[in-house]
Amino acid sequence: MIDGKVPATGAAAGIALADLPLRDDLRGLEPYGAPQLDVPVRLNTNENSYPVPDDVVAAMSAAIGAQLRDLNRYPDRDAVALRTDLAAYLSARHGRQVGPAQVWAANGSNEVLQQLLQAFGGAGRTALGFTPAYSMHPLIALATGTTWLDGPRAADFTIDADAAVALIEARRPEVVFVCSPNNPTGTAVSLEALAAIAAAAPGMVIVDEAYAEFARPGTPTALELLDAYPRLVVTRTMSKAFALAGARVGYLAAAPAVVDALQLVRLPYHLSALTQAVARAALAHADALLATVDALKTQRDRIVAELAAMGFRVAASDANFVLFGGFVDDDQRRVWRALLDDGVLVRDVRLAGWLRVSAGTPAETDAFLAALRSVHPAGAAAPSG
Amino acid sequence: MIDGKVPATGAAAGIALADLPLRDDLRGLEPYGAPQLDVPVRLNTNENSYPVPDDVVAAMSAAIGAQLRDLNRYPDRDAVALRTDLAAYLSARHGRQVGPAQVWAANGSNEVLQQLLQAFGGAGRTALGFTPAYSMHPLIALATGTTWLDGPRAADFTIDADAAVALIEARRPEVVFVCSPNNPTGTAVSLEALAAIAAAAPGMVIVDEAYAEFARPGTPTALELLDAYPRLVVTRTMSKAFALAGARVGYLAAAPAVVDALQLVRLPYHLSALTQAVARAALAHADALLATVDALKTQRDRIVAELAAMGFRVAASDANFVLFGGFVDDDQRRVWRALLDDGVLVRDVRLAGWLRVSAGTPAETDAFLAALRSVHPAGAAAPSG
Repeated sequence: MIDGKVPATGAAAGIALADLPLRDDLRGLEPYGAPQLDVPVRLNTNENSYPVPDDVVAAMSAAIGAQLRDLNRYPDRDAVALRTDLAAYLSARHGRQVGPAQVWAANGSNEVLQQLLQAFGGAGRTALGFTPAYSMHPLIALATGTTWLDGPRAADFTIDADAAVALIEARRPEVVFVCSPNNPTGTAVSLEALAAIAAAAPGMVIVDEAYAEFARPGTPTALELLDAYPRLVVTRTMSKAFALAGARVGYLAAAPAVVDALQLVRLPYHLSALTQAVARAALAHADALLATVDALKTQRDRIVAELAAMGFRVAASDANFVLFGGFVDDDQRRVWRALLDDGVLVRDVRLAGWLRVSAGTPAETDAFLAALRSVHPAGAAAPSG
Repeated sequence: MIDGKVPATGAAAGIALADLPLRDDLRGLEPYGAPQLDVPVRLNTNENSYPVPDDVVAAMSAAIGAQLRDLNRYPDRDAVALRTDLAAYLSARHGRQVGPAQVWAANGSNEVLQQLLQAFGGAGRTALGFTPAYSMHPLIALATGTTWLDGPRAADFTIDADAAVALIEARRPEVVFVCSPNNPTGTAVSLEALAAIAAAAPGMVIVDEAYAEFARPGTPTALELLDAYPRLVVTRTMSKAFALAGARVGYLAAAPAVVDALQLVRLPYHLSALTQAVARAALAHADALLATVDALKTQRDRIVAELAAMGFRVAASDANFVLFGGFVDDDQRRVWRALLDDGVLVRDVRLAGWLRVSAGTPAETDAFLAALRSVHPAGAAAPSG
């Protein structure tokens, strides 16, 4: 039977994506992702510019080394030790009691968000986000079959609580996303606005706090609302402040019942023994890793000040990046390209008139500012914003 | 506003799963997973009983060590080096040309399967599987909103090609799963049956070959059909033969367009730098790791022979486990419990009359057989099957 059917030359290599039975709602989509270019100054993905310190590398190496021989065994499916350490970190940092049963972890906060939409979103359900925000939110909604609804932000990228509540009451989305501090704008949302949204929302409210550790003094965390709003979820990541983007560790804090819900949709053994070990080693050295946060905030504030002085429009930032612009016509694309030609990669987040730059080392800020000045010499060509 | 709203005591801890806006189709579900019990002889999850050899541990440690300092950076989103190594492994092992563009990797084959259903399944689409088979197939279908359809197997757990084709033609499922060698039965599917299924299927055909390396001589792989059937996908894992369950590495081989499709739904940076590094180190030492396969197959065949001699019904196995039974009434539960009391953990896969035991070390087989004999002394109490 086989011999008669198998053609002499392979047909598989010739099939095009368009000829595969792809879901209709995915057709024409491009894969998500910033260009991964090998340039001297990479300020496009909000990575932490500081490598892992030697003593933390040594601790990670030891922690991982202890796991390697036993990799033939599945990891702890519930990652209890890691969740205990994450809960202790949140409790210590924010002076609140967060227990392991309130914490869940996955391969990056993207996977946490995907699990949340698998449990609480999906076909026939709607997720609302206030855009511009983290562009993966609508993409994860798409991949999980959840209808996406764009909500508005004010001209300064804040969320108007009354408008948000009115929209929620009108559309009754099963899931509401609030990114705070918001990517790509850097904008933190007030607790008052969050509480109003949580009070109005008929379903889950996900506060994506990937950049929480970079917030300016006095900026609150939605963790303060957890006790009051049992359908509120706060997601975090170790990619940014902990400088652990390469290890893929995201987590959430929520009511224990939310964690129970995610265990119905999580893939069993989703978090490798190595991931659990390296994350625990990082948490044991949180002080050393988080020591970079103040330095990055200093550069962030410096970028804000310098760009404003150069005449750019600049969004206030509680994150490790700055959205700047006032670009008109094709200046946005031209400046992005000119910076790249100077070895500085920033992000065009497809927001008309704006570019986003990550705050890195002082030398990286120097290089970015110098390159930008050469594009907009002496402020003469800078937009007046 | 906040101060007036936040209650003095937390409401979040008190909310029950039933009170959360969980998807209706998930209500009442229990989290997937075998009991993780700390007993002397664990033969319940088809792990490879052999730990990673010292020289491979050293190589893994070096490979990971080289990544730790730079964990502040995101990993290669497309895992090109790992996919190149996986393609080389498949090409060398099966004497066929498989290129990196035909290979995709994720955190365990479960994530590969989830991505496939996100791209080709989902709401309004149906996936067919021939059960009993890997119980995660319908669960991943559920989590991705894909309707699940149970197809039949014969009494000996083989798939009747004519019946399968008739069912496919009648129901036109967008995705067909074929697990071969099949978990939990150990049954390999013939190339003839696979080709008939692939020729009849209107959509994707996923051949789950997690246990392929344990197949008996002469058992073909569906890789041989890739060139002829461009909608065929072969999934594999490093968890079993490579003894890498703790590292979570699954992969597939398919037409390059299938890989293109998965890049539309994969979470960006889904595979950590550590996972990529440890998998590559394992592949570089494939011979050392796969040296356990023959030993495990010997134990598998020994278990089959001994259980048959004891009077049990035994399914022919091309995997690293054996399905045995002929249990009636509550014997299935009673034997499972009695074995556990003797320190031997096997799997009750909820298949009436059957239990599954993994093939491990000779000592583990000894312990299992001794414990089973003490439950069914001298064959007297053994079912006649």
